[in-house]
Amino acid sequence: MKLGDGVEQAIHCVLILSNLPPNGVLPASALADFHGVSTSYLLKHLQALAGAGILLSVPGPRGGYRLAREAEQISLLDVVVAVEGPEPAFRCTEIRQRGPSPLAERFYKPPCAVNVAMQRAEKVYRAELEKVSVASLATDPRSALGAAISTRVCGYLEEHQRITKTS
Amino acid sequence: MKLGDGVEQAIHCVLILSNLPPNGVLPASALADFHGVSTSYLLKHLQALAGAGILLSVPGPRGGYRLAREAEQISLLDVVVAVEGPEPAFRCTEIRQRGPSPLAERFYKPPCAVNVAMQRAEKVYRAELEKVSVASLATDPRSALGAAISTRVCGYLEEHQRITKTS
Repeated sequence: MKLGDGVEQAIHCVLILSNLPPNGVLPASALADFHGVSTSYLLKHLQALAGAGILLSVPGPRGGYRLAREAEQISLLDVVVAVEGPEPAFRCTEIRQRGPSPLAERFYKPPCAVNVAMQRAEKVYRAELEKVSVASLATDPRSALGAAISTRVCGYLEEHQRITKTS
Repeated sequence: MKLGDGVEQAIHCVLILSNLPPNGVLPASALADFHGVSTSYLLKHLQALAGAGILLSVPGPRGGYRLAREAEQISLLDVVVAVEGPEPAFRCTEIRQRGPSPLAERFYKPPCAVNVAMQRAEKVYRAELEKVSVASLATDPRSALGAAISTRVCGYLEEHQRITKTS
């Protein structure tokens, strides 16, 4: 099982943007520099996040990205699905119907037991990710970001954020 | 998130082998034919299952594969890990430490909040897969394999299994 490394970058971008003031935006290049990744690579994920309604893209020379809704309303599941797509990790190809002398179609109406069990596991995985909001990552005592790390982020934002007229 | 299609094939192979008599084996080619996949491709997964102690490979012209332990003792997690490897789906690259002016190392001693939350979700996913034994797939009323499907499998085994002297 594998998640693309875009997931880690996307979550950290959303986390950082959650520290912007209401009328602030951060250009993609500043997000890329902060994470030591290429802007063109990161843009693909930022656009996916914007397409999913998680980020708002403000165009123009003073533009950039901000959250499209409160960080409390953005779950880890939202970000993972935006970047990785909504398809299940386990994709049943109805392998039970392949090979020599398959049965008549009616015998395959009940879903494959393997798929049912695999999807049940994915459901609990998704439910667990859905419980965690981006906002809670910064405050959950089980996984605190740490004051120093937050301060570094805020210092970076002070330097690179752009204040727009639309809030 | 994506699981390779080897997972589906591997689970179905283990399921089929669970119907063999104690001294029976099934050659890889018969498993491949039954699933309509190439033997060389399937062999990679069968060898991974054997390496993980799930299958036993009996060498020789009358050889083949059988389960290395009872189907009750083989979970879906065992099969997924054998085929996909033990690495977590989310691989933290400590992206929080990259970019300009990172903090001193000591500030990064507490694990990254993002990784903690992602691994917590994977833990429940794995626990769910661990609950499901290959044996239970055939009997769980939520996901019955169906008598006709089992009969097809047994008919195929009758035709292709090999009875070995070692049991």
